[in-house]
Amino acid sequence: MAREARDDQANRILYVQTSGAEVPERSATVFFLAAAAAAMDVEVGIYFTQFGPTLLKKGVPEQLRIKKGSLGATLSHFIDQARDLGVRLYVCQPSLDLNDLKMEDLIEGVEMIGGAAFNSLALDADQVICF
Amino acid sequence: MAREARDDQANRILYVQTSGAEVPERSATVFFLAAAAAAMDVEVGIYFTQFGPTLLKKGVPEQLRIKKGSLGATLSHFIDQARDLGVRLYVCQPSLDLNDLKMEDLIEGVEMIGGAAFNSLALDADQVICF
Amino acid sequence: MAREARDDQANRILYVQTSGAEVPERSATVFFLAAAAAAMDVEVGIYFTQFGPTLLKKGVPEQLRIKKGSLGATLSHFIDQARDLGVRLYVCQPSLDLNDLKMEDLIEGVEMIGGAAFNSLALDADQVICF
Repeated sequence: MAREARDDQANRILYVQTSGAEVPERSATVFFLAAAAAAMDVEVGIYFTQFGPTLLKKGVPEQLRIKKGSLGATLSHFIDQARDLGVRLYVCQPSLDLNDLKMEDLIEGVEMIGGAAFNSLALDADQVICF
Repeated sequence: MAREARDDQANRILYVQTSGAEVPERSATVFFLAAAAAAMDVEVGIYFTQFGPTLLKKGVPEQLRIKKGSLGATLSHFIDQARDLGVRLYVCQPSLDLNDLKMEDLIEGVEMIGGAAFNSLALDADQVICF
Repeated sequence: MAREARDDQANRILYVQTSGAEVPERSATVFFLAAAAAAMDVEVGIYFTQFGPTLLKKGVPEQLRIKKGSLGATLSHFIDQARDLGVRLYVCQPSLDLNDLKMEDLIEGVEMIGGAAFNSLALDADQVICF
């Protein structure tokens, strides 16, 4: 979704994720849909705000099971699938502060953007879909 | 909002509902706005994900009061109004699993779609509005 | 974002806020991003529904600290910044009822709109971004 890289013919979806590790049932949908979109050749980014950045903390995805009390898939499965398909991950500084996180606490490859950059991504997208 | 049925001149809104019967105060808005949009000749669908499908479980809408402790309207009122105006209701398989629901547990007329179909509906819509 | 005032060349973003004073960590993002958008000459409105109107109750913004247990900024800071930049604030009647609020309980300058007006604002906007 970066301006230098984008294909002006492609559709673009920006997802927003506001829930974090405190509600596992709300953690996988955004990666599942983002991966599905990327597989459709849509340019996809996910912006993590409010509690969302806690999903990207090193060590969390491997341990977070989507369904409480289940032995099913962990969040890692969904994140890896999305990233392998080229989904970009964004965070904002204020929400890192809110969760007492620093960029070095997060998994590799997450990009920090400010409010103006978020709004520009949103305006450039065909849809913004918020969770 | 189905491709075969849609009117290319009409506006289209896709709503997304992520909260379920566990927070009654979050249950009616989406049906209220969807009905208002359908009454404006907008083509309207609602996609239920995360906890959203619990609102569609048989027996729930008749008993769920929007405001805790009140004797006011139940969710049935809002669902019936939206459906009478042609609002379409969609669920996804993973969120059924998440809530231990099967299609036969849901009220009549709900359609199941996958992630790719959701993204296509979203890209075809004029707006996606998420609750 | 009112039709009489709008500039047809300008971008428009409509934000939606569903969380209220019960989750302070979810209260500031919408004002922060709305202010950033207004500073980019985007026409910006925020629609408060579900628990959102509780953020606009007189006396609440001055006391609500965004981060629990912190001595940091209160919500007033974010609301004032957004309003100084021309961000418009909307509520709906049903969500006032839901929170036992009346218009006179809210801070000055909030506008009440119905479901049809909300949908029209949404369709007129370039993006709808929901929290």
